[in-house]
Amino acid sequence: MNDFSIGVDLGGTNLRIAAVDVNGHLVEKVTLGTKVSLGRDHVINDMCEAIQHLSEKYKNSSSMLGIGIGVPGIIDMQTGLLRESPNLPGWAEYPVRAEIERRLNTMVILENDANVAAFGEKWLGAAKDHDDMAMLTLGTGVGGGLVLGGKIWHGMNGMAGEFGHTTVEPEGHPCGCGNRGCLEQYASATAVVRMAREAIAENASCSLARAAHSDLEFSAKSIYNLAIQGDEDARRIFRRVGRALGIVLSTLVNSLNLPIYVVGGGVASAWEAFAPAIFEELRHRCMVYAATAPADPLAQGGGASSHVDPGPGRKTIITRALLGSDAGLFGAARLPMIAEAAR
Amino acid sequence: MNDFSIGVDLGGTNLRIAAVDVNGHLVEKVTLGTKVSLGRDHVINDMCEAIQHLSEKYKNSSSMLGIGIGVPGIIDMQTGLLRESPNLPGWAEYPVRAEIERRLNTMVILENDANVAAFGEKWLGAAKDHDDMAMLTLGTGVGGGLVLGGKIWHGMNGMAGEFGHTTVEPEGHPCGCGNRGCLEQYASATAVVRMAREAIAENASCSLARAAHSDLEFSAKSIYNLAIQGDEDARRIFRRVGRALGIVLSTLVNSLNLPIYVVGGGVASAWEAFAPAIFEELRHRCMVYAATAPADPLAQGGGASSHVDPGPGRKTIITRALLGSDAGLFGAARLPMIAEAAR
Repeated sequence: MNDFSIGVDLGGTNLRIAAVDVNGHLVEKVTLGTKVSLGRDHVINDMCEAIQHLSEKYKNSSSMLGIGIGVPGIIDMQTGLLRESPNLPGWAEYPVRAEIERRLNTMVILENDANVAAFGEKWLGAAKDHDDMAMLTLGTGVGGGLVLGGKIWHGMNGMAGEFGHTTVEPEGHPCGCGNRGCLEQYASATAVVRMAREAIAENASCSLARAAHSDLEFSAKSIYNLAIQGDEDARRIFRRVGRALGIVLSTLVNSLNLPIYVVGGGVASAWEAFAPAIFEELRHRCMVYAATAPADPLAQGGGASSHVDPGPGRKTIITRALLGSDAGLFGAARLPMIAEAAR
Repeated sequence: MNDFSIGVDLGGTNLRIAAVDVNGHLVEKVTLGTKVSLGRDHVINDMCEAIQHLSEKYKNSSSMLGIGIGVPGIIDMQTGLLRESPNLPGWAEYPVRAEIERRLNTMVILENDANVAAFGEKWLGAAKDHDDMAMLTLGTGVGGGLVLGGKIWHGMNGMAGEFGHTTVEPEGHPCGCGNRGCLEQYASATAVVRMAREAIAENASCSLARAAHSDLEFSAKSIYNLAIQGDEDARRIFRRVGRALGIVLSTLVNSLNLPIYVVGGGVASAWEAFAPAIFEELRHRCMVYAATAPADPLAQGGGASSHVDPGPGRKTIITRALLGSDAGLFGAARLPMIAEAAR
């Protein structure tokens, strides 16, 4: 067997641990619930047990290179401290890295969950042929990750890539972060349901009202199902999702001029419903995109109006993530491999 | 004398050429008009003559390392071709680099004018202590430049840093780029005058109407003069400038988490009139800024509400450029020095 590392995806709901080899083969995956209510130490115990189980099992036939952990929250990269995490109450200022290194006596790299998802898609997914890429993760909230020159771009203190809190509507819906009109308020699963409930409250949609009444779990998925059945009110909501994403992606394209932007997370399953609106915005808002003859299956020829032909192989790609919920596991597992290679 | 290089700032109005030594000392500067109407070859002749004059004069006492040229327009970095330049009609697809290298037999580096301005401020100006920085240049339009890891970030095809075309108001004023509501439509000198004329047309400002009537050259500077005299209508216009800048700077802070963002260009002279609105937006729209106890002389204590203390020396700085119109000259002159060092 090839050398391997352990990737951990520590979410507010699920705790997943995987052994991944240096070629990106998922050797074994353990999925547990994150027992947040039983407290931090309980979760750390569960995690360490699973890590030990996997590393014991495979370490005779090959080298275990280290542990990468993706965590939802703000991390101090220098100290490996979890500064704060809304999904992990009681973990604020906890030295996750030092604690797990102490228990398992192995190198641990702690990283933001949206960053490891981006890094996974860069390693093995939609962006595997690119050294520079950005990813938007559309889940309960909207996360983001930026990879430049093959490395996660952390910024000054690990807070780069917060694309979910880009202002899309200056006077828009209030966001938990203190801003108004953040992308997260238009492109997260939470936002999809909120926009549907707003339409119902305004008596603007009988179909959504009926669905909300009959479907106790009225979710972004329910609204997507309506959209693919052709319901115009549901489709309008996903056009708003796409428009907000298109505005933010245009800003990223104009600012960073990256070759590829990847959209993942649960809401990305509704790609067909919101992607046309993304490309529509990009064509209007973004010189570079129009100029780079977009690899946009939904809008062939959209770049024809531009005067700048950047030459072959220089298309701006906006695409769906490929690794689904495993992106973060792969990205986390990749971190110790890279650190090892750098030694 | 120390080794030196030649920096050129080729604008639509002025053509400036300077010898700058490796310590950043401006040895000599030649300022000419850009005789755009006499054609491309005439301008190239003027430029080459001035470059030759300076390099002949100093090359006996020290080495001339090369020539850096800042040009307003889109440049193909690989070929040194000027793809297009609205301010230099007749130059599209012209191989500027090859032509000047041929004539002068010296290494030439061609670069976008906003990028060299950023690079100048990074070398000797407001961002000289930082390897990562972004700059917004507020002139007739709004340019931008991004320096990451001490190098200009070009992106896939040299079009990164176009912060002026970030969407600030999704349904806002139409922009020449094809988008609506670009930063350039709210924070350029052109935009300041347009917003004043809009206020006049709406009969919303007697003071601006009087000024426009009596001042034939009714300019952004005239409106700034009214603002510093306390005219509320003029001040309101600069608050709109600051608000638009604050929205874009918040996006940059949330996305890139850089230590410093520099605002330059002619309109930056009105810093006092628009800066308070920038910081106001940043406080609301930007987790990282609030978290990093801003080095904001106008808003001490603005970060007090945050839970994240990034520690000493980790402030997000938003500040004025220091080098004025020489930033581009210095940045252009720096390019061959860096290229030389890399050999």
